[in-house]
Amino acid sequence: MTRAVILLSGGMDSATCLAIARRDGFDCHALSFDYGQRHGVELDAATAIAKATGIAEHRIMKLDLGAFGGSALTDARIDIPESPGDGIPVTYVPARNTIFLALALGWAEVLDAGRIYVGVNAIDYSGYPDCRPEYIEAFQLMANLAIKRSVEGNPIQINTPLMELSKGEIIRLGVGLGVDYGLTISCYAADAGGLACGRCDACRLRREGFEAADWADPTQYREA
Amino acid sequence: MTRAVILLSGGMDSATCLAIARRDGFDCHALSFDYGQRHGVELDAATAIAKATGIAEHRIMKLDLGAFGGSALTDARIDIPESPGDGIPVTYVPARNTIFLALALGWAEVLDAGRIYVGVNAIDYSGYPDCRPEYIEAFQLMANLAIKRSVEGNPIQINTPLMELSKGEIIRLGVGLGVDYGLTISCYAADAGGLACGRCDACRLRREGFEAADWADPTQYREA
Repeated sequence: MTRAVILLSGGMDSATCLAIARRDGFDCHALSFDYGQRHGVELDAATAIAKATGIAEHRIMKLDLGAFGGSALTDARIDIPESPGDGIPVTYVPARNTIFLALALGWAEVLDAGRIYVGVNAIDYSGYPDCRPEYIEAFQLMANLAIKRSVEGNPIQINTPLMELSKGEIIRLGVGLGVDYGLTISCYAADAGGLACGRCDACRLRREGFEAADWADPTQYREA
Repeated sequence: MTRAVILLSGGMDSATCLAIARRDGFDCHALSFDYGQRHGVELDAATAIAKATGIAEHRIMKLDLGAFGGSALTDARIDIPESPGDGIPVTYVPARNTIFLALALGWAEVLDAGRIYVGVNAIDYSGYPDCRPEYIEAFQLMANLAIKRSVEGNPIQINTPLMELSKGEIIRLGVGLGVDYGLTISCYAADAGGLACGRCDACRLRREGFEAADWADPTQYREA
């Protein structure tokens, strides 16, 4: 069976992406990062999702992006905003997808995997530059020149099956593939027990998604 | 003073690159990786070079590429070759420069640094795909779309001042800038004391470089 590397954050998009890679017939190797994000509950979620999906392997790689600082997601001194603002939000982590995709590319080459799946989405997203299709296309062109396997005529393809879907469409697709969204965490400010704040940008997009999909929201909020 | 991030491996190319960035007037922030390479002596060398050059900051980031395997540089079960072979050698580390540049990009954005210096070289090199000018150009185009700062019209420029120089030219340039090459390590199989094997690809390129530059080779070899 051909292998694929799937970036698995513990959120709903990457859980859906993993289910799609599995449906596409790949032997799935999921990769998560312990990158100094504020709470470990999303790594617990990633582990639970990997287990529930029944895949070949799930690795969590330690990566100290917190040492760089500069993001509300890795620096406890920067507050998580509770309402949408203009431009790119403070939850942006500099070069995050570039760093994650670069590591996925290295692992994929070692595994002899021909695909990387990443759940980026250009519709219902937070405005991060490294979620746009033109960014992924540029990463693909760079990757084609970067690694031995590509230079030898056997490139690794980066798949972004959620790119053009709305949050509601993603949820409908995932529900059809059996994704248990109750295992996923989206909240930027979830507490240690995994309860969501219900107020941050990620919570807002997630709730609107379940409404649009007309599917019961399984999220556990701190204030019900 | 404008800041720059310099990738510092402990080898002669990156030491020269650091001296060039300093000459160019940048406030230099050097970045090294403890990535599971076989010996720690090159990190000691990077520390000594940073100290001798007198720069703002030197960080060593831990990165467990050894967990992926697949390279003679990170996997003790693969032997280091003692003579040049055809194609890309087993010392190739999958996606290494992509991973290092991605992390440099993130740190540069946090530091508000407008430049990244990397000592890649397309002339006297080991045949790695991620040392070629077309690869660096593609990484630059990707980086321009990846980060907040670039999208806001203020891109981070990747400088490769050694790209078109021979090893001999690099050494002549570095000597003129006061680089102490006795502090640098090139050997893929240096022992714990930093003594070079004198036989691997990196040793061969280094020795030929000192000969071409007509400069006394300060390298300490195991067998003199």
